[in-house]
Amino acid sequence: MDSWQEKTIHTEPIFQGKIISLQVDTIELPDGKTATREIVRHPGAAAVLALHEDRMLVVEQYRKPMEKFQVEIPAGKLDPGEDPIVCAGRELEEETGYRAASLRPISAFYTSPGFADEKLYLYLAEGLEKGAMNLDEDEYLSVEAITLEEALRYIEEGRISDAKTVLAVYAWRLYKLTGEV
Amino acid sequence: MDSWQEKTIHTEPIFQGKIISLQVDTIELPDGKTATREIVRHPGAAAVLALHEDRMLVVEQYRKPMEKFQVEIPAGKLDPGEDPIVCAGRELEEETGYRAASLRPISAFYTSPGFADEKLYLYLAEGLEKGAMNLDEDEYLSVEAITLEEALRYIEEGRISDAKTVLAVYAWRLYKLTGEV
Repeated sequence: MDSWQEKTIHTEPIFQGKIISLQVDTIELPDGKTATREIVRHPGAAAVLALHEDRMLVVEQYRKPMEKFQVEIPAGKLDPGEDPIVCAGRELEEETGYRAASLRPISAFYTSPGFADEKLYLYLAEGLEKGAMNLDEDEYLSVEAITLEEALRYIEEGRISDAKTVLAVYAWRLYKLTGEV
Repeated sequence: MDSWQEKTIHTEPIFQGKIISLQVDTIELPDGKTATREIVRHPGAAAVLALHEDRMLVVEQYRKPMEKFQVEIPAGKLDPGEDPIVCAGRELEEETGYRAASLRPISAFYTSPGFADEKLYLYLAEGLEKGAMNLDEDEYLSVEAITLEEALRYIEEGRISDAKTVLAVYAWRLYKLTGEV
């Protein structure tokens, strides 16, 4: 398989933003021809399936790329050098006002491996108690605690429709069925 | 919640590529201040949890954004105007050589709602029979059929680590436990 590796011939930086950057790499294919790859760089993120009295904490916020409100689990970008589990606890408290006694890893995954390097670390948070809510300056959201039945209905209705939250709901269903994270 | 909508004041087109485009929107926040949103546009994609003799079909390919080989379920971009279920069947056959007698929707989700509008449609494919493999010109991959235990081990090892494939494995576990898609 090593010969299938895509060797970079040239990297063209296109954009450096606040959150993402974009580059176009020219690569050599196994047959010697060249192709281009459009690559978005992202610092990575952490997200939390936070369970409290058999309900999941979610936040509703406006998502500009889709031009609609979405219900999602608490999540946020990693600060430079930040451990994802620290980020998960921080974002949970900032967005919902809850602190977790226990944070356990569920999974970590690349959200869009075809064009982005964003990696998302998903944790299970339990033993929640009230801390202090503290939103980013340009962040507006509302918090809710929903049952599994409500979560499945939100997915059905499209109010929940992002990868990390759908995956968290699946993980929650499996946790309830098997007792395993 | 309507007052929380992020109104676009200005859109700056940055890049138009083969697969994605990038723009930066200046928006008005609920408090009247402005902020920017970096937005990647993507045509959307379809992916397939294809089960054959209690094994899942996966493809291994090099993923340039992460600079590593990844094992993923068959997937590909929607052609303009293409129905996602048609795309799912097409990509399954092109990448693995199998045709499915039955394709049922599992879920549809935005992969990175913070910065991209990419929506991925995930299907369950059953009743597989041999068709003809037909890869894109710049596509190199190898096909494998793995058990659930192998899939879970691949996740553990990081060989499977993208959202759609992890989600497909969770959906497969739930399907085996509950009989429901």
